[in-house]
Amino acid sequence: MRNFDENSITQAVLDRVARASDARTRQVSQALVRHLHAFVKEVEPSMQEWEAAIGFLTQTGQMCDDKRQEFILLSDTLGVSMLVDAINHRDMAGATDTTVLGPFYVQNPAVFPLGSDISDGMKGQPLFVSGTVASTDGTPLAGAAVDVWHSDGDGYYDVQQMEELGGLSMRARLLTDADGRFHFWTIKPAAYPIPHDGPVGKMLEAQGRHPYRPAHVHFMIHAEGHDTLVTHVFIAGDDYLDSDVVFGVKDSLIRELVPHPPGEAPDGRLMGRDYHSLAYDFRLKRPSASAA
Amino acid sequence: MRNFDENSITQAVLDRVARASDARTRQVSQALVRHLHAFVKEVEPSMQEWEAAIGFLTQTGQMCDDKRQEFILLSDTLGVSMLVDAINHRDMAGATDTTVLGPFYVQNPAVFPLGSDISDGMKGQPLFVSGTVASTDGTPLAGAAVDVWHSDGDGYYDVQQMEELGGLSMRARLLTDADGRFHFWTIKPAAYPIPHDGPVGKMLEAQGRHPYRPAHVHFMIHAEGHDTLVTHVFIAGDDYLDSDVVFGVKDSLIRELVPHPPGEAPDGRLMGRDYHSLAYDFRLKRPSASAA
Repeated sequence: MRNFDENSITQAVLDRVARASDARTRQVSQALVRHLHAFVKEVEPSMQEWEAAIGFLTQTGQMCDDKRQEFILLSDTLGVSMLVDAINHRDMAGATDTTVLGPFYVQNPAVFPLGSDISDGMKGQPLFVSGTVASTDGTPLAGAAVDVWHSDGDGYYDVQQMEELGGLSMRARLLTDADGRFHFWTIKPAAYPIPHDGPVGKMLEAQGRHPYRPAHVHFMIHAEGHDTLVTHVFIAGDDYLDSDVVFGVKDSLIRELVPHPPGEAPDGRLMGRDYHSLAYDFRLKRPSASAA
Repeated sequence: MRNFDENSITQAVLDRVARASDARTRQVSQALVRHLHAFVKEVEPSMQEWEAAIGFLTQTGQMCDDKRQEFILLSDTLGVSMLVDAINHRDMAGATDTTVLGPFYVQNPAVFPLGSDISDGMKGQPLFVSGTVASTDGTPLAGAAVDVWHSDGDGYYDVQQMEELGGLSMRARLLTDADGRFHFWTIKPAAYPIPHDGPVGKMLEAQGRHPYRPAHVHFMIHAEGHDTLVTHVFIAGDDYLDSDVVFGVKDSLIRELVPHPPGEAPDGRLMGRDYHSLAYDFRLKRPSASAA
């Protein structure tokens, strides 16, 4: 097989990847070739544009390290992450809605006792976060691992300021009590631009888009016998709820930040200054029959 | 805009990228979103498969350095490079056919006088390469810059063995004489596997494909008032002409390797051993009216 032209090459590549022994690899490879070639045929890139695309992808990969995942940002900002999330969570059956993982999760965060201040003394407005974890039928889930992570009051995550902080902060694993409850102290997160000093930032600028996400706290909740829940709780009233750069906002995930005067907090802590509280009751589903 | 699901998110992303002020950026962004989302909707990746895709792209970028371009290999092996090449060379009007650039070109190679041995004493079977450069109307093109590069007899390029070689080899720029002629000595290239110790090699293996390209010499020819020609000359009889991993072979680019006994070579050099010769007459076109 030789002498391929723009009419014959797609089938030639499809025939070649059809040799994959694994059926799923074959299916994904063929779909990739069809859609990728259809895209190229539609936009008819010049050689210079092809070189620019190669350069963009290369820089996106090279921007990635243990603190930065530029390809996740690309997936997020093109709506692919939320699309994949939606496809994988069609039947929520009363469970809490999901949203994107984002690029800032760190595996196996340190376990903090309930009621801890997970901000490690960071400057910011105090925030009391509490909630419950239950199965969709209402049964409280004791010992569920509640991983939380969020930005500081300037919109930066710990991993973006490791040199200044010297370690992780504003992230923890909490274990629910016998009634499926958890609570912790931290500082109020802010809306923030996703890291935009790389290729994805340049893309957003070229597309006339702002890089902001509304303020939120990330949650990943593992409980035995249930699907892991990856979601955020968004703060009501944020300017960017309707234009989240990663398309991740759902009304069901928005909660009011409740202001409190100084005094005794819900967990008995005596607060010498104003603080806010944020609460969310999570519901986790059991694996669906087809995936069980 | 919020609460996107798999039915509504594509239009939401299209609306967002429609803000691009540059019309071409808008067109390419919208086409990318449509085709990328269509691919995702067709294959319905699991969260683990999405993570694997992010990992594959990240590793592909991180494999790239000044001697290795893994994203070009990916484009080549998925037939995208030849498709883009075909789209950009529809009206060849008697000019030499084009093929892929490949990942081993080095900008601005050293200029060698005609008749030089560009292999810098590398071990291998001697090869005399000659040819002419002319315009499609037959007018010889004097002073054309003929950039050549090729593998050694084991199938490796200089940039793949810089530590052992200590510098570049088997690549040069030659300038055609008053009659548009060029000739040089080198060693016979071999068929070779593209670098397959990275993500693209793993992809080929999963797709049941071999990583080989048939033996060839790369040419990039610049001549004033003409389109730059990027092509190869393939060696007739090679085992991989019909299964080139990058889909680059065209019959018009295949030439016989002519064996010669020891004695006086075409350029007067006295050869004490057998050698081969390879010849090609290139034709370059003037820019088409629409691109002028």
